[in-house]
Amino acid sequence: MLNIEDLKLYLCTDRGLSLGRPLVETVEDAIAGGVTMVQIREKDIPSREFYDLALQALRVTRAHHIPLIINDRLDIALAIGAEGVHLGQSDLPCIEARRVGGEDFIIGVSAHTPAEAVRAERDGADYIGAGAVFPTGSKADVSAIIGLDGLKAAAASVKIPVIGIGGIGPKNAAEVIASGAAGIAVISAILSQPDIREAAMILRRCLG
Amino acid sequence: MLNIEDLKLYLCTDRGLSLGRPLVETVEDAIAGGVTMVQIREKDIPSREFYDLALQALRVTRAHHIPLIINDRLDIALAIGAEGVHLGQSDLPCIEARRVGGEDFIIGVSAHTPAEAVRAERDGADYIGAGAVFPTGSKADVSAIIGLDGLKAAAASVKIPVIGIGGIGPKNAAEVIASGAAGIAVISAILSQPDIREAAMILRRCLG
Ligand code: NI
Repeated sequence: MLNIEDLKLYLCTDRGLSLGRPLVETVEDAIAGGVTMVQIREKDIPSREFYDLALQALRVTRAHHIPLIINDRLDIALAIGAEGVHLGQSDLPCIEARRVGGEDFIIGVSAHTPAEAVRAERDGADYIGAGAVFPTGSKADVSAIIGLDGLKAAAASVKIPVIGIGGIGPKNAAEVIASGAAGIAVISAILSQPDIREAAMILRRCLG
Repeated sequence: MLNIEDLKLYLCTDRGLSLGRPLVETVEDAIAGGVTMVQIREKDIPSREFYDLALQALRVTRAHHIPLIINDRLDIALAIGAEGVHLGQSDLPCIEARRVGGEDFIIGVSAHTPAEAVRAERDGADYIGAGAVFPTGSKADVSAIIGLDGLKAAAASVKIPVIGIGGIGPKNAAEVIASGAAGIAVISAILSQPDIREAAMILRRCLG
């Protein structure tokens, strides 16, 4: 079950952007700095490796009462007992994930347009990740940038909470919240910083 | 729920080995020729694409009352309502897949040694895929060939049925069955043949 407050400072992991530091260590430090929710995202690794990594992360998030969300892989989320799954537009249909995951399972869906957000809400999503709000180093496609206006439009189109994702850091976090987002999702603004805990604390302060 | 007879002639799909023919068409033809079970295996495609493909295959297998098994992706199996999942040693742990999938869900596990077979049985597997029995073009690792002796050892180590996989065709299918296998799993012996239906019919005859 989603607590909207948990969306405030949402960390997406990416082992390629964490300056070589082990995932579990970065998650631990990020939580110490004030991250409220964690999504584990891994592509192109064997299922068992993803499972093992997610299970390690879950031990940390559980100890700190932080919800853990698994990107794409509903099966891994269910196998480890994670709190939820996050689905992109190329992942499983939200409506099927809801049926399989059950009522209390958290499901987030990435949306780039109000239409995608509305469909996700109709299909049982608990929250929307809308973006990319700003240009980002991790995803190069400029045409996919929705800006603060796109974020506002997405947030206005649904009743479920919307978080902004893409290029968000201390300088623009407050604008994202002011545009109707319940929180911000970040990768490099936390993971790529030399002091992860401090980076998370600074972002928390920007969110008011 | 697994019917042991369904393991007799088990087709694993591989779009790279089907001479460019569409998956659904090859599955349809293979079933017409006598295939008794179908496993869909896809690597490196987006989840949604795998889901769509599996759903297409399910329409065909359902129409012919043939169980459909999904390789690795338990979530896709559950999302489409497939009969089961097949797990390799680098996939999710069998014991977790059983917990998530439930009692009646079919779970197969690939094993290369009697120890792996015994563990899979203990963890709730319904059947074992043992191999590679013979050298195969699709998997080049020669050290992974267990031979008929390895197949016999695997079959003798567990109570659940064992099927042979790897390099099996009309010339050696009977030996595989004589070595204690409940059936044969094939890819190219059906998929790479010009006449898929006929290739399946020939194999069926070899199985007695
Ligand atoms: Ni801690």
